Amino acid sequence: MLRNNNVVFSCFVFYAVLLLLKMYVLAFITGQVRLRKKAFANPEDAMRHGGLQYHRLDPDVERCRRAHRNDMENIFPFLFLGAIYSMTGPSLGTARLHFVAFTAARVLHSVAYLAALPAPTRSLAYVAAQVPCLSMALQIMAAVASYA
Amino acid sequence: MLRNNNVVFSCFVFYAVLLLLKMYVLAFITGQVRLRKKAFANPEDAMRHGGLQYHRLDPDVERCRRAHRNDMENIFPFLFLGAIYSMTGPSLGTARLHFVAFTAARVLHSVAYLAALPAPTRSLAYVAAQVPCLSMALQIMAAVASYA
Amino acid sequence: MLRNNNVVFSCFVFYAVLLLLKMYVLAFITGQVRLRKKAFANPEDAMRHGGLQYHRLDPDVERCRRAHRNDMENIFPFLFLGAIYSMTGPSLGTARLHFVAFTAARVLHSVAYLAALPAPTRSLAYVAAQVPCLSMALQIMAAVASYA
Repeated sequence: MLRNNNVVFSCFVFYAVLLLLKMYVLAFITGQVRLRKKAFANPEDAMRHGGLQYHRLDPDVERCRRAHRNDMENIFPFLFLGAIYSMTGPSLGTARLHFVAFTAARVLHSVAYLAALPAPTRSLAYVAAQVPCLSMALQIMAAVASYA
Repeated sequence: MLRNNNVVFSCFVFYAVLLLLKMYVLAFITGQVRLRKKAFANPEDAMRHGGLQYHRLDPDVERCRRAHRNDMENIFPFLFLGAIYSMTGPSLGTARLHFVAFTAARVLHSVAYLAALPAPTRSLAYVAAQVPCLSMALQIMAAVASYA
Repeated sequence: MLRNNNVVFSCFVFYAVLLLLKMYVLAFITGQVRLRKKAFANPEDAMRHGGLQYHRLDPDVERCRRAHRNDMENIFPFLFLGAIYSMTGPSLGTARLHFVAFTAARVLHSVAYLAALPAPTRSLAYVAAQVPCLSMALQIMAAVASYA
């Protein structure tokens, strides 16, 4: 239990840290693809791995980077929304549903991105992850609107 | 009211969530521009929308993406600074001035970016948004410097 | 002291805000390099600074942007992990060690990036910064796993 004695918050933190670990894995994969495809963003890295000809773009590396950027665009807002939503007093069951749905959709999003699954798999995962975020955002707004 | 009984924090949360919703709108606009201009970042998306020739860059899409990235660079730090600043005990009036100034400047930044308003409109909005952030950062540092 | 009366949290906040200020400096440097190299991401900016021929990519600007993006990928998660970790009740000495190690490694990462220091300096700084983040993530998971 964390020191704020909020069970919903502790539940949120579990999924939030899981998603951050997922992002770290994605960064690790990006590095491995760079090494395997010999495609480096910086000339000093290319020099260390065979020469300046490896300072180049690669479609698989770019795919990893797009997946990572999309995570930043969506998981970082979730870190904020989930934390604040936990302070609005939701029931644990409803809150967990939000957190689990977001987490599952974002894991599917990463898999669909890296495996280049046929469209619109990735887009549907993206939209599915937006639903709990918008739900939390609206509930937060209802709780704080009078303090604007 | 949120469970921490901090009026300034509730005020901050209102503007923070408003800005996250603004970012979601920007992501939605990016998707719409991709569909309208038929310019997709992934071959699997292009295949679904007419063929691999639509796996291509588009200046309007790139503009949306630059606006979104600039939001990540600036609004995400605000989410942190505003939350901590609310814990330093500022008056509600002063705090709200910081939050409203930042929010207004970032909305103007997005409008200036997407509408390609003549320079330096967008840059001035960027600088105007930095002022409350630097003010909050310095006030936080003054409050915690002895705990470094 | 912040209103939550948590000394570890105040210590964390000091380093967190220091790192955000470091990111603001990086954004400022990017802008200065754009002006010096006359390389602008937007045609409206190029028009203001001499003409559309300056709407172009520049390797030094792209280097700044890569450094900034890597900061977003790593410092933003730290803002979350450090805050939650402070709520798990670590000793001040152990916690400060995590925060100082991360901060030092990320400052070195920025210097190595901007100065294009020979590989693998930058990569080692990146890995060194990951160690305290993974340590905090695992300690948080241990604290909240039963609330999943």
